[in-house]
Amino acid sequence: MVTLTQIKPNITLEQFLKYPETKPYSEYINGKIEPKPMPQGQHSTLQIRLGTKINEIVLPNKLAHAFTELRCTFAGVSIVSDISVFTWERIPKNEQGKIANRFEIYPDWVIEILSPEQSANKVIRKIMFCLEQGTQLGWLIDSEDESIMILKPNQFPQVKSNEENLTVLEDLQESLQLSAQQIFGWLTV
Amino acid sequence: MVTLTQIKPNITLEQFLKYPETKPYSEYINGKIEPKPMPQGQHSTLQIRLGTKINEIVLPNKLAHAFTELRCTFAGVSIVSDISVFTWERIPKNEQGKIANRFEIYPDWVIEILSPEQSANKVIRKIMFCLEQGTQLGWLIDSEDESIMILKPNQFPQVKSNEENLTVLEDLQESLQLSAQQIFGWLTV
Repeated sequence: MVTLTQIKPNITLEQFLKYPETKPYSEYINGKIEPKPMPQGQHSTLQIRLGTKINEIVLPNKLAHAFTELRCTFAGVSIVSDISVFTWERIPKNEQGKIANRFEIYPDWVIEILSPEQSANKVIRKIMFCLEQGTQLGWLIDSEDESIMILKPNQFPQVKSNEENLTVLEDLQESLQLSAQQIFGWLTV
Repeated sequence: MVTLTQIKPNITLEQFLKYPETKPYSEYINGKIEPKPMPQGQHSTLQIRLGTKINEIVLPNKLAHAFTELRCTFAGVSIVSDISVFTWERIPKNEQGKIANRFEIYPDWVIEILSPEQSANKVIRKIMFCLEQGTQLGWLIDSEDESIMILKPNQFPQVKSNEENLTVLEDLQESLQLSAQQIFGWLTV
């Protein structure tokens, strides 16, 4: 596959942001345009079910908001995580007090769902970049292994599976309990 | 694919070790038999070239020894890393002072080369298990991203690419310099 990376190596973030959105979404990282993989059935299922589950718990109490495929532009990159969670007070708002269209800050929690044949290191690097910028928590969901890698700044990662309680944002841990078993159970219909 | 896991869920390590070796190799982890993926061209190239490169530098000075596809049985698991490196004094020997046939200790440095469609989390978990048992260093090589994730016990991982100097075993760092660029350069013939 010829990616835009090879065609236009020297584009600025400002130029990139002026381009129309593509499907699948493209991200701007390290001065390069990187297309995300086209989401498939399992990816899409986990994305909507997990996003819904988080919001079900955290929206009514105004604790946080989960967004799917949201473009976040900060620290010289423009990324689209599969799920981005923002704590309530950090949700960007416009002048009318509504949710802003442009998110120019890092998410508090980024969740990536590994697609078949997607480069794991590329996704892990994206999560690590967010953690260096202020993101508190990163998840890498691997349906093949039915496990979730949990990354926190400056800490050795953990990989959790089965019924183990998954680490969520500190502010949400009293209300939001999740396990790998529950999450991968959504794939069985 | 039906794996042995599904057929024989309750096998002991002792029983597993009595079975004849299979190709691709199988590993015994968490009470389950897990077949490794069948190595393909790029995987095989990186394995032999990197193993050779390490040995070229560390064998003459009796610093360490790199082995490919070596079964190591320790702490209730029996794993076969793509490359296992042992510091010189830890290489298991038999009564004649030759290299032992059974390695019943953890490697000092484990190197895994991600295969297409292989579960990243499964491989990362294997590396993390070794690090918990005493292994000093783990590498996860991702040809798709042309990068190497470096894992050390109790530390936040790093992902290195291009010309960056890759972290090697502490005892080897004065003699062995490697970069991602050099390693992935071996794929161009």
